[in-house]
Amino acid sequence: MKFYYAPHTCALASHIALEEAGADYELARVDFAADEQRTPAYIAINPKGRVPSLVTPRGILTETPAILMFVAQSYPQARLAPLDDLFALAQVQSFNAYLCATVHVAHAHRMRGYRWADEPTAIAEMIRKAPQAVGECFALIEREMFVGPWVMGESYTIADPYLFTLAQWLELDGVDPKHLPKIADHRARMSERATVRKAIAAETSA
Amino acid sequence: MKFYYAPHTCALASHIALEEAGADYELARVDFAADEQRTPAYIAINPKGRVPSLVTPRGILTETPAILMFVAQSYPQARLAPLDDLFALAQVQSFNAYLCATVHVAHAHRMRGYRWADEPTAIAEMIRKAPQAVGECFALIEREMFVGPWVMGESYTIADPYLFTLAQWLELDGVDPKHLPKIADHRARMSERATVRKAIAAETSA
Repeated sequence: MKFYYAPHTCALASHIALEEAGADYELARVDFAADEQRTPAYIAINPKGRVPSLVTPRGILTETPAILMFVAQSYPQARLAPLDDLFALAQVQSFNAYLCATVHVAHAHRMRGYRWADEPTAIAEMIRKAPQAVGECFALIEREMFVGPWVMGESYTIADPYLFTLAQWLELDGVDPKHLPKIADHRARMSERATVRKAIAAETSA
Repeated sequence: MKFYYAPHTCALASHIALEEAGADYELARVDFAADEQRTPAYIAINPKGRVPSLVTPRGILTETPAILMFVAQSYPQARLAPLDDLFALAQVQSFNAYLCATVHVAHAHRMRGYRWADEPTAIAEMIRKAPQAVGECFALIEREMFVGPWVMGESYTIADPYLFTLAQWLELDGVDPKHLPKIADHRARMSERATVRKAIAAETSA
């Protein structure tokens, strides 16, 4: 398999999962600074012009929640999701859908407001409000969703690398992690994990 | 099971899937006009204050992609997803993640810009750009993702009611379906389906 990523993006979540699974894959960096994600060569891989993309023998997969579940199901021995418990699995999917469609979207208004507005003043207003929007998402996770010690409870799952990936952006998003003790502790423990260190080192040294 | 919905929301996708599955459930309408989704009673069910929510004997599920997959896995005889083919299943998940995190989000900038901005001029600018953002999403689906005759090909899946639900909003989002012949044809076929007619009738007559 070949995994297309860019550093400091949500691709890190799937990258960590591939490491946790012990998957055989090679990394392919997409140079966002050079707008490589919009080149015909990359658009042929992912017409959305985004990362991550996972090239498998069967075809190409995109979207973090889909890649995470595919990795968990393809490497069941890694126990990255409660595959035999439909309700527990749905809870993992629900958490990851919230990260994908609400938390990451709130963050994206600081980074990529041009997706939803052209006027510079409107984009500036999105940037201004992003700390509040992102902060409310993480407060909800801290208060209502995070079970502990891992996101879903006693077992590490694909929800953990995904939360960790978005939580890495908290300070840049203008949110103080001191109000999020469970998430901050989770982030600290995740950052010490060998798989996480390996994935981050590979992304930032390439 | 008890299914919380509001008419004209993305809850319709899960509602149709419950019908397709032949699930035993009761409907519970959340009155958005009265801001019922923000009442303590509903926040106790879904702290996000959104629909859909599916109350099961094991607990409450939220987020459309998670509910759809839970229904497909809980009622395998309904064949709503390729449960025995991990790659094909991941493609369904990828499609639904795109609907959830990109297409629905583009639409939400016409309806709920207050999530990401306070300034009325910024919210107006989001509304102005929504037809372009939504239109680009559906054009990508039409060109690159929709296989036909159903979203994923020969088999009807949980991607079909979800696409149908968001495609119902095309005209209101300022997108002309005549440029989207495959999606328009799919929408027309879906709207004739007995399960779809039953779900819509139940939502709009309650």
